[in-house]
Amino acid sequence: MPITVSVKTIARVELVDVTYLVQQEVEKAGVKDGLCVVYVPHTTSGITINEGADPAVCSDIIKKLKQLVPPHDGYRHMEGNSDSHIKASIMGSSVTVLVEGGRLVLGTWQKIFYCEFDGPRSRKVFVKMVNC
Amino acid sequence: MPITVSVKTIARVELVDVTYLVQQEVEKAGVKDGLCVVYVPHTTSGITINEGADPAVCSDIIKKLKQLVPPHDGYRHMEGNSDSHIKASIMGSSVTVLVEGGRLVLGTWQKIFYCEFDGPRSRKVFVKMVNC
Amino acid sequence: MPITVSVKTIARVELVDVTYLVQQEVEKAGVKDGLCVVYVPHTTSGITINEGADPAVCSDIIKKLKQLVPPHDGYRHMEGNSDSHIKASIMGSSVTVLVEGGRLVLGTWQKIFYCEFDGPRSRKVFVKMVNC
Repeated sequence: MPITVSVKTIARVELVDVTYLVQQEVEKAGVKDGLCVVYVPHTTSGITINEGADPAVCSDIIKKLKQLVPPHDGYRHMEGNSDSHIKASIMGSSVTVLVEGGRLVLGTWQKIFYCEFDGPRSRKVFVKMVNC
Repeated sequence: MPITVSVKTIARVELVDVTYLVQQEVEKAGVKDGLCVVYVPHTTSGITINEGADPAVCSDIIKKLKQLVPPHDGYRHMEGNSDSHIKASIMGSSVTVLVEGGRLVLGTWQKIFYCEFDGPRSRKVFVKMVNC
Repeated sequence: MPITVSVKTIARVELVDVTYLVQQEVEKAGVKDGLCVVYVPHTTSGITINEGADPAVCSDIIKKLKQLVPPHDGYRHMEGNSDSHIKASIMGSSVTVLVEGGRLVLGTWQKIFYCEFDGPRSRKVFVKMVNC
């Protein structure tokens, strides 16, 4: 089993800052210099890196995605969550972050956000590192 | 030359499940534990990971992308496929998947989809693995 | 500090071809066979791979993103650049490219574009390679 981080979401659509959880796994693994891939094994959620200082950025991302991909829009998929699947593909299923000195190398304002598009649910994220 | 997988598309816009083709390359390469990058060397197609159980999910993705980025919309690029280029950048040019025990570590419902946006064409995908 | 490439942008929204700058770092690092991750440590810009031959493709990408995510659209984030943040997440924070024979393995028409969404600014891009 890969390194797995659990994420509990509390809303249908929500961006959850998982930076600290990922950083902890980097430290546990003892990787000093390399790459860290954070992978979402679900099809109605994604992952992105964006600003963590002002929560309004996340709420603007959520609102715009809802405008572009409304929950009900004549979809064929009968489970009522086609919008979640589409948003997942727009955001992407993984991010790759550099690791140096045992730490994720993020920009000043960057945080890693788990993008829940069909919650609330108990979710997981895989973390894999390579030395380089 | 990198490991290359051929994909023959039969429609202008189509999502093709390439999971098995990628898995075969992982087995041939004998990588047991690592990362697998699947890379699209074309500019009018992309790649994504999403649900493979109900084909309606793929058709909803295609339909929504067509609504957001219509084939004809006053584009400057004269080849008539600007929508394909734009969709390619929205989906992305590669996915990265974990490998454990010689197998791609995908979620229960996840499949890797080649996203043809300007077919039908003979396409290729590069696969590269790193042990870690 | 990771390998860092400087990018000076001259417009609010602009796609800048950084392929040559990245290729130079691959050569300096002496990596012959592997993967190259190009990472953007900013939250109002992204990175994508698309056609470099006809500049109209980039201008069509920019125009469509502006239609989908207008600069002013009732955003909550007060800095006036919510559209930039949203576009950054749609394009993504990194690309991963194969390296073979000391060169980036790009398709015939592919170039790597830094996506400035809140310029003009002095920006940077991190480059990290792994042998494999």
